[in-house]
Amino acid sequence: MPGIIESYRSLLPVSDATPPLTLHEGATPLIHAPRLSQMLGIELHLKCEGFNPTGSFKDRGMVMAVAKALEAGSDAVICASTGNTSAAAAAYAARAGMRCIVLIPEGKIALGKLAQAVVYGAQVLQVRGNFDEALELVRQISETHPVTLVNSVNPYRLEGQKTAAFEVVDVLGDAPDILAIPVGNAGNISAYWKGFAEYRVHGRLGRLPQMFGFQAEGAAPLVRGERVMKPETLATAIRIGNPASAHLARAAVQESAGLFEAVTDDEILEAYRLLAREGVFCEPASAASVAGLIKLHRMGRLEAGRRVVAVLTGNGLKDPDTALRAVDVTPVTLDASLAAVVEAML
Amino acid sequence: MPGIIESYRSLLPVSDATPPLTLHEGATPLIHAPRLSQMLGIELHLKCEGFNPTGSFKDRGMVMAVAKALEAGSDAVICASTGNTSAAAAAYAARAGMRCIVLIPEGKIALGKLAQAVVYGAQVLQVRGNFDEALELVRQISETHPVTLVNSVNPYRLEGQKTAAFEVVDVLGDAPDILAIPVGNAGNISAYWKGFAEYRVHGRLGRLPQMFGFQAEGAAPLVRGERVMKPETLATAIRIGNPASAHLARAAVQESAGLFEAVTDDEILEAYRLLAREGVFCEPASAASVAGLIKLHRMGRLEAGRRVVAVLTGNGLKDPDTALRAVDVTPVTLDASLAAVVEAML
Repeated sequence: MPGIIESYRSLLPVSDATPPLTLHEGATPLIHAPRLSQMLGIELHLKCEGFNPTGSFKDRGMVMAVAKALEAGSDAVICASTGNTSAAAAAYAARAGMRCIVLIPEGKIALGKLAQAVVYGAQVLQVRGNFDEALELVRQISETHPVTLVNSVNPYRLEGQKTAAFEVVDVLGDAPDILAIPVGNAGNISAYWKGFAEYRVHGRLGRLPQMFGFQAEGAAPLVRGERVMKPETLATAIRIGNPASAHLARAAVQESAGLFEAVTDDEILEAYRLLAREGVFCEPASAASVAGLIKLHRMGRLEAGRRVVAVLTGNGLKDPDTALRAVDVTPVTLDASLAAVVEAML
Repeated sequence: MPGIIESYRSLLPVSDATPPLTLHEGATPLIHAPRLSQMLGIELHLKCEGFNPTGSFKDRGMVMAVAKALEAGSDAVICASTGNTSAAAAAYAARAGMRCIVLIPEGKIALGKLAQAVVYGAQVLQVRGNFDEALELVRQISETHPVTLVNSVNPYRLEGQKTAAFEVVDVLGDAPDILAIPVGNAGNISAYWKGFAEYRVHGRLGRLPQMFGFQAEGAAPLVRGERVMKPETLATAIRIGNPASAHLARAAVQESAGLFEAVTDDEILEAYRLLAREGVFCEPASAASVAGLIKLHRMGRLEAGRRVVAVLTGNGLKDPDTALRAVDVTPVTLDASLAAVVEAML
């Protein structure tokens, strides 16, 4: 597990001048989901990106973006983020000895994610606005000041993220029939598609998968075909109304004969609980990929027998508040006596 | 990364009858810490156990305990836990299709950990008492009821945990000079020692390391040589006054010419922040291992040039509350204007 730059050096835009930056991102497990497979009549594997160093898939792109910024002589990185990007940027900047500035939209930031960025030493600025406004600000700043923008408009982000597609093929021996993935800012679906396409060029797979992108009902610009001005969902990591990589994501879905579909917050939480029963605790946003598959199955639109990889983008520990709301349980409190405990167990 | 049972089958008490249970635990990275190495005058590597499926080293022992419980025909597991054990037990029980009951002591449970156990589907019972009282209760229940105790008195726990020592040697090519490790219930230090000793028997290493066990000042029974009735520390994962594996831990330290030392909560938080600047976000309890090394260095008791592995037992996301207290930062809130952000950045 030497990190993605070392593992996929020949397929990435790196050279001997690129610093060997890594926190051992990548090489995340692909876990078979027996119960969900049976429920949906498919062969379902979960690409568990929460195993990455900062707990999300963002580490793949960020190690590239920060390494290239360091190679270019930059001493600071900046990003706007709903959380996962800022944690990754802060971690890799810390590792590289660079300054990191993160702009976060006001409100609804998951506690774990904010804690990460701050502990890693980033300067965190909260702006009175939504994600899109924060992103516009960092774009402007990176054009007028000597700091490197590491949001997904940074092309190295997608380069790093595409390595997840390589790993899926390396494990399965070919692409799956379907790649199901949550879509927020739309960089990840685009990166997977790029990865599959490049692996095909190199003869590493025999077919391309269909790309199924799932958005939250209240933040579904790619399903609706228009920007959402006030995106709303408990899945904060995909609460985005104006995806930066919308055009790439649309191309991926179109070229792969895939689809976009929306799922409600209730459907996301149902999938979230079912995933935990497979032993995998993911972020609510991650569960959108499986929620989408469940919805398609119920609509009769998921063909039986397909081999499907669902991408779980982040670790459930990123958002313990949602976890506790989702299961709606306060632990029973008992006296420390054998009788009391045995009675409660039965 | 096939999981520890598959990876170390010949060195574990498993057979063809043992279910191939795994959530892809183990194979955690050993990350070099350049800044701390320089500061301490040693070669420091961090064994990052927070990369495990539920975010702590407990997964190694729990996959063994639950697999053996399933092999024996049990349909339920029970444990007392300050948090990490319950998360691991709940996850592996869910994966195995078994019921899981966890007793937690009242108060001071990190939010992320409780969330995990509940989401994984465990029945969580909070008892009015401390960890030791909860442990005594589950011992009694497992003796009188058909449930398998998976606390560290379960011998398979140490068997699974010893695989971390194997991995350290597999990566370094030999044992380090010193293994620095946080000590709470004392199972992990005992397991590492067992692992190193077994690897020596198999000719896989040329020397044994010195075992340095670090406890929190307010919960340091092995340093003081007596049980602590009211253990106190912000490092909840090692807030234990009466370690279950005390005798094994004492033997490990004695046989290896090692030591036990106590560190204050402030020293733990200092190490916690320094680790984040290396790009590694760990639990406060994990940072006790590095806090101890810093303390020994300051006392002139850490020999220069040594190769040291510090075990970071859990993921920082387990305890975001402590993280936010530790860095004492509320993000600055600004208007969404270029001028306001640029001014704040400078």
